[in-house]
Amino acid sequence: MSEGNFDLDEALYSLGNTPSTLQGFISGMPDSWLDFKEEVDAWSPRFVLVHLIHNEQTNWIVRTRVILSDVEDKTFPPFSQMPEKEDFPPLGTDSLLDQFASLRSANLTELREYGLKDEDLVREGIHPDLGSVNLGQLLATWVVHDFNHLHQIAKSLSKRYTEAVGPWRPNLAIIDA
Amino acid sequence: MSEGNFDLDEALYSLGNTPSTLQGFISGMPDSWLDFKEEVDAWSPRFVLVHLIHNEQTNWIVRTRVILSDVEDKTFPPFSQMPEKEDFPPLGTDSLLDQFASLRSANLTELREYGLKDEDLVREGIHPDLGSVNLGQLLATWVVHDFNHLHQIAKSLSKRYTEAVGPWRPNLAIIDA
Repeated sequence: MSEGNFDLDEALYSLGNTPSTLQGFISGMPDSWLDFKEEVDAWSPRFVLVHLIHNEQTNWIVRTRVILSDVEDKTFPPFSQMPEKEDFPPLGTDSLLDQFASLRSANLTELREYGLKDEDLVREGIHPDLGSVNLGQLLATWVVHDFNHLHQIAKSLSKRYTEAVGPWRPNLAIIDA
Repeated sequence: MSEGNFDLDEALYSLGNTPSTLQGFISGMPDSWLDFKEEVDAWSPRFVLVHLIHNEQTNWIVRTRVILSDVEDKTFPPFSQMPEKEDFPPLGTDSLLDQFASLRSANLTELREYGLKDEDLVREGIHPDLGSVNLGQLLATWVVHDFNHLHQIAKSLSKRYTEAVGPWRPNLAIIDA
């Protein structure tokens, strides 16, 4: 099942891997790394996890339901990048990782249960800023969004060692990315 | 144990995590993703694994031994980014992941057995291009090199979906990184 370069089975596979990737990457990581921000407004790895959980709860699957529903107005409900302070999940790393894994798993189960076909991937919804988008684009964005944040965590952690790597810095593109 | 921002225990922890991160990330990934190159000269995720294995065999631990040895000439032996074609490991994903994990584990065991102290981290070797470098800088570079390649794999896989994400592309920095 594919639409252009997008392949639903590959996408489901990739989305399913992310919890174990994050588990390997940051489970047991010292707090000094998990809370590191390379600049005042940057997100620490812990905040990235909160953002990923918030997206599982309020973004991807919610928008999928809108697209697949029979409602007249297919405008996606409002969405913020981060939850309100009072809705923050407990910030212990293991509980964040577990919560993300269980939300992701439930969302992928729901997605599989729709039994999506090629013609479903071109069904549309209305993004408040971007206008018309289709389900295939939403699901591809979900996949790349995971990669984007893995890359953000790797980049952020690399910057802790900007000075420590000494003369190797020009060989490590990620530090100055 | 730390030298500037570098902390040996944190570094050992981070280096020890990478095999399970890669396992979560790419174990079972379809060949179409593992062999994807965003341009002719780019490295596929599979080639990145080969490069990481080659570094475990011929780079970090070899250079560590030179620095800690009593030899007069502390110049690091020649090193290439990739093995010669005939020395390529078997290219099955699981065997690459297993080989990387077992080499990394042996190298970290060796590193722990040295019982490194702060004064060891400033001991120097001669890099053929960069000149004098110390052990702390070498170990920090080993850590960031892992992050650099995780980021490279994430970036490369994201580019598969450059078109598929449609109007979301400007929101996904990784695609055009």
